[in-house]
Amino acid sequence: MAELPDKATQFIDWYLEVVEAAHLSDKRYPVKGMNVWTPYGFRARRLLDALLIREIERSGSEPVEFPALIPANEFAKEGEHIKGFDAQVYWVTKGGRTDLEMPLVLRPTSETAMYPVFRSWIRSHRDLPLNVYQIVNTFRYETKTTRPFLRVREIHFFEEHTCQTDEAAAGARVDANLATFDTIARALALPYIALRRPEWDKFPGAYYSIGLDIPVAGARTLQIGTVHHYRENFSRPYGIGYEDPQGIQRPVHQTTFGLSERLLGAVIAVHGDHHGVVFPSAIAPYQVVLVPILGGPDPSVVRSTAAEIRDRLGSAGFRVWLDDGDERPGAKYYRWELAGAPLRLEIGRREAEARTVTAVDRLGRKESLALDTLESRVRERLADLDRALAEQAAVRYSSAFSRAHRLEDLPGSPTARVLGWCGREECGHRIEAGIDGALLGTPVRDPPGTDGASPDPCIACGRTDTTVWAIAARPL
Amino acid sequence: MAELPDKATQFIDWYLEVVEAAHLSDKRYPVKGMNVWTPYGFRARRLLDALLIREIERSGSEPVEFPALIPANEFAKEGEHIKGFDAQVYWVTKGGRTDLEMPLVLRPTSETAMYPVFRSWIRSHRDLPLNVYQIVNTFRYETKTTRPFLRVREIHFFEEHTCQTDEAAAGARVDANLATFDTIARALALPYIALRRPEWDKFPGAYYSIGLDIPVAGARTLQIGTVHHYRENFSRPYGIGYEDPQGIQRPVHQTTFGLSERLLGAVIAVHGDHHGVVFPSAIAPYQVVLVPILGGPDPSVVRSTAAEIRDRLGSAGFRVWLDDGDERPGAKYYRWELAGAPLRLEIGRREAEARTVTAVDRLGRKESLALDTLESRVRERLADLDRALAEQAAVRYSSAFSRAHRLEDLPGSPTARVLGWCGREECGHRIEAGIDGALLGTPVRDPPGTDGASPDPCIACGRTDTTVWAIAARPL
Repeated sequence: MAELPDKATQFIDWYLEVVEAAHLSDKRYPVKGMNVWTPYGFRARRLLDALLIREIERSGSEPVEFPALIPANEFAKEGEHIKGFDAQVYWVTKGGRTDLEMPLVLRPTSETAMYPVFRSWIRSHRDLPLNVYQIVNTFRYETKTTRPFLRVREIHFFEEHTCQTDEAAAGARVDANLATFDTIARALALPYIALRRPEWDKFPGAYYSIGLDIPVAGARTLQIGTVHHYRENFSRPYGIGYEDPQGIQRPVHQTTFGLSERLLGAVIAVHGDHHGVVFPSAIAPYQVVLVPILGGPDPSVVRSTAAEIRDRLGSAGFRVWLDDGDERPGAKYYRWELAGAPLRLEIGRREAEARTVTAVDRLGRKESLALDTLESRVRERLADLDRALAEQAAVRYSSAFSRAHRLEDLPGSPTARVLGWCGREECGHRIEAGIDGALLGTPVRDPPGTDGASPDPCIACGRTDTTVWAIAARPL
Repeated sequence: MAELPDKATQFIDWYLEVVEAAHLSDKRYPVKGMNVWTPYGFRARRLLDALLIREIERSGSEPVEFPALIPANEFAKEGEHIKGFDAQVYWVTKGGRTDLEMPLVLRPTSETAMYPVFRSWIRSHRDLPLNVYQIVNTFRYETKTTRPFLRVREIHFFEEHTCQTDEAAAGARVDANLATFDTIARALALPYIALRRPEWDKFPGAYYSIGLDIPVAGARTLQIGTVHHYRENFSRPYGIGYEDPQGIQRPVHQTTFGLSERLLGAVIAVHGDHHGVVFPSAIAPYQVVLVPILGGPDPSVVRSTAAEIRDRLGSAGFRVWLDDGDERPGAKYYRWELAGAPLRLEIGRREAEARTVTAVDRLGRKESLALDTLESRVRERLADLDRALAEQAAVRYSSAFSRAHRLEDLPGSPTARVLGWCGREECGHRIEAGIDGALLGTPVRDPPGTDGASPDPCIACGRTDTTVWAIAARPL
């Protein structure tokens, strides 16, 4: 039971140790960057997927699944796209003992798998919009250092692909995706910033890209999702067109919305503390953990009360775990704090006889609950924990950004920076060199700490006429 | 609206057309045998997965997910296994622009992905049993003709892998898996036969294999699952051992249980009829389809009643679809019969005013339901449909087998055959030649139509001393 590294000063060490100690992922698989989803991590992922599925289907999207292997010729159809992915795809070149005539790419993302088929699904304006999504694994031959959930070679991935009648309808779908993401982020108590990426950092083939970034430590940010407007960039090479009500043939406008297992990494990174992981109740594999304290001479009342509580909370729809193993209670508390269980219920003989239970939430707040109103009190305690997580995350979020007025302020920046930018690539790269990171882009809403003010002059060139707010940081 | 081919005489043509017409799968993807899961097919699959997940977790198994790519050296560790799969795996040989030092196999099944990691998960008898499962896609470079759900190159796959203390414990897990499968098969109203495969047809590396077969047409059967006992065949080469309570080091005994998307194919094959697919309510994407009949002068009461029914049935937990498109009611009936919706509710003005609705189940049985007790009546109608499907499937099942007493009875057999077999491979192959198919194995329970009788003499050699019942058929 060694101490965890300090989260503030040794973020990555802390993160790696917490993921391992909480048994969320096992990286002892013999291919680097391809990790095993252990039962506990898998359960969190499944709950996260269920949240995504619920919200994306509520926004009018339908589930599909396209094959994992993409023929080389389809993959190469959109010029920018292939250039962007060529260096990081896995190639399947042999089937059995023979070389394949047409090599296959393991999908790094599914534009080039889906679009040849969309072409046959869409004929008329009546077939639009087409909003479909899939949750699959994607593959990238990653050459940078891999980290569980944050940068891996087999990525658990959510991707929506849509076809719309025109640019405005596609823009509206982008907005709908941003609203859906906002609901998801709230359920996870994750504050984030939506940023229109600069031209040089957009998705290969996109008209524009919006990144969804979460500040995690110092000037570090984590891109956990993207929404792209493709205009006609893919529909033209893939021939995805429709007949409009006037009988005119038009190419569709397309959008995509992507999220990955990084979202789970972000939950760990944002809410975790010196005791370990902290799960918001929405995705906690076990929301309530019961620890019976069986010290006394007659443990039967404790056992039966623990079983009663487990059954009652289970019937009420909570995910509950009765930890009746041999360990001492203190060891169980330690382990479940590490694993991030939102609420622990301790049941000793005195509590059992008095028909109460001691509730301790993952932030250490203790309360005695009467068994006769247990279900509603547990619901309240979980809601209260979620609220407290959201509040403390909001406080950290607002101190994760600070204004910068001069290029000299950027090196060694202790936070992400809010600054004025003229929009020119040259100045953008000077800003990136200054912070030794990236110009993440221009915020879709007012950036933190600016209170609706007009943008500062460009931090690099001092221009004021085309200036916009921008965020510079060091992406993880 | 062409007629479907005759199911009895043109089974495969019927099957292929039904799958396509019901929009369950799209095979226009540019790699043969890799098909697109369309929204409707995906929803059925998701419900099937949910059923598997519920039942396997109830039997004490935990979810995991192992990587899709397996290093060549791990893949090769068990001799029989690699021999069995070598000719049908996809090889990943390049990452980005460079050749991989260690080629990777796209998993055809996950023994060789999991077992190197199991080795580090298991130390002591306290770590046993280890029962884990995953639902993933597997890949086979299939050279035979591909068919949606029945034989594909990317296979949606369920696989449980367990480690047990000894051979008996592993045998008990095999029995538990058979019991789990029985529950799943009942939920789908699918009669099946469990057969211990002959030695020459067991899983590569197994000690014994039990196949789960479903008769589908004539002498045709479909293997929809398998349960294998591996004894120590994998644990020895992979070094998966434990310390027993006496401090002695022992290899674990392993089992696996596999099911695939063929289960969906079997549902279509067994229950489908001359109108199309017939879904049992457990996995019907929409259990209830509402068709408003808007012919009259004032359709508002029909519209509002249809919306009320949709909302009420949705709140009661039914999967319900209100089909309020422009088509004529007859066209909708046709389409939803093709798609296999278990129950259709027709709502005209007269019904709406009388607060009733006309229910027609997928077997064509019509009834008027009062709206005030709608939820319970719909529940009854669905249960009744499931019962009727099970009954008609049971009748067909029992006529799908017949006894054979002479090798000359086998050629051109109109059913699967129940026969005596001495257990020798030589006689087995003579039987297989006779039926132009396979000796599926020896039934785990009494075979159909034998009423507990002792096995017939061997159909090939006439021996009586070692004879067992066996089933010969022509696997699809």
